[in-house]
Amino acid sequence: MRNIGVQEAILSENDRIAAQNRGFLAQRGIFTINLMASPGAGKTSLIAGSIECLRGELRLAVIEGDIASSIDTDRLTSMGVPAVQINTGGDCHLEAHAVAQALSRLSLEGIDLLFIENVGNLICPTSFDLGQSSKVMVSSVSEGDDKPQKYPAMFQAVDVVILNKTDLLGICPFDRDPFLRAVRQLNPEVQIFELSCLTGAGMDAWTDWLNRRVDETREIRRPSQPGGLS
Amino acid sequence: MRNIGVQEAILSENDRIAAQNRGFLAQRGIFTINLMASPGAGKTSLIAGSIECLRGELRLAVIEGDIASSIDTDRLTSMGVPAVQINTGGDCHLEAHAVAQALSRLSLEGIDLLFIENVGNLICPTSFDLGQSSKVMVSSVSEGDDKPQKYPAMFQAVDVVILNKTDLLGICPFDRDPFLRAVRQLNPEVQIFELSCLTGAGMDAWTDWLNRRVDETREIRRPSQPGGLS
Repeated sequence: MRNIGVQEAILSENDRIAAQNRGFLAQRGIFTINLMASPGAGKTSLIAGSIECLRGELRLAVIEGDIASSIDTDRLTSMGVPAVQINTGGDCHLEAHAVAQALSRLSLEGIDLLFIENVGNLICPTSFDLGQSSKVMVSSVSEGDDKPQKYPAMFQAVDVVILNKTDLLGICPFDRDPFLRAVRQLNPEVQIFELSCLTGAGMDAWTDWLNRRVDETREIRRPSQPGGLS
Repeated sequence: MRNIGVQEAILSENDRIAAQNRGFLAQRGIFTINLMASPGAGKTSLIAGSIECLRGELRLAVIEGDIASSIDTDRLTSMGVPAVQINTGGDCHLEAHAVAQALSRLSLEGIDLLFIENVGNLICPTSFDLGQSSKVMVSSVSEGDDKPQKYPAMFQAVDVVILNKTDLLGICPFDRDPFLRAVRQLNPEVQIFELSCLTGAGMDAWTDWLNRRVDETREIRRPSQPGGLS
């Protein structure tokens, strides 16, 4: 019982800081994604692919969460994108206070879109609000089609499910239709994108969605001026 | 600080029950594997493949850990193997007390080899002893070759690393040699098996190892009788 009390206190303190992060980002008109997935599903590849596709259209920044190493941050920094690494030590998820610290270290001037790459884990990250605009998860063909049944809370918590590694359809055992049905059953409102970060197939629909969401976020920050004479 | 105290108390209580599980299993001469991996790396496929390969040689039983569903247990039970499901609810790892309960529900008469399939997670399961004889992890080609750098504690905690989905070498981007080097650097004593549960390639070396470990476990339980006249 005592442990449950401590967990509740941690979650409530986390929510308080997440709300501060959300206010900070909204004030700057930055659309922010909390990106979650299993290890190796393709979170960093999705971010790298989005950077390539959106070059010249949107200005991106990245907060990278990992247990250890700065492999992903080095990869993204080399693409010319401001990126900050959070190493959680042993922690299996990001928390709002670590994101707050990372925000204070990031150069956010002119940024439209911020990716927060969570630790590779389909369980614990669902419980921690980071102050994001949207929660997105990546599920990959090579993980198998039974993930919605096994990790329902993650599939229910997100606004978007990306089915990555579609280049492996027909190579890995994966039944596409039952997978999509199970996702929609758990989360009827969810947006689903099917793509391959390796080949680039399907990236357009995803980056169109990002562009629309960034536009909406800008409009919320800057209400349109009354136009002309009307 | 209070939270750290609670965590330490949970771990110490877990260790106490894990020691009881270990004694219970040793008394019955059962070689027990705590099997860990990312979601979709192939834990259940490895167990199913081992059941097929060892049919007629060893008698297996399985404890299945999952957040939700009994998909895996149903699959293994249909292969004629005693299997018990633990649904952890939201918990991201198995603990010794849940394994103790599952052991009391399993028919272990004549069993040589017990697989405990942990929850799909490369982080939290490393901290919880279940009373196993050996810790084994599965890493799959489609997850990428950077997992040792990103999840070093898991690669250090185990006795065996299985590189699964070798049928995807040459299809998925994966540099085999740097992966193997990184694993051995983190864990010089580790046994590595490279195999494909899909094609069956490489399963022999793994099941030979299982057979040897089961023999050793039997010998420890039943010291050989003094033979003949010597």
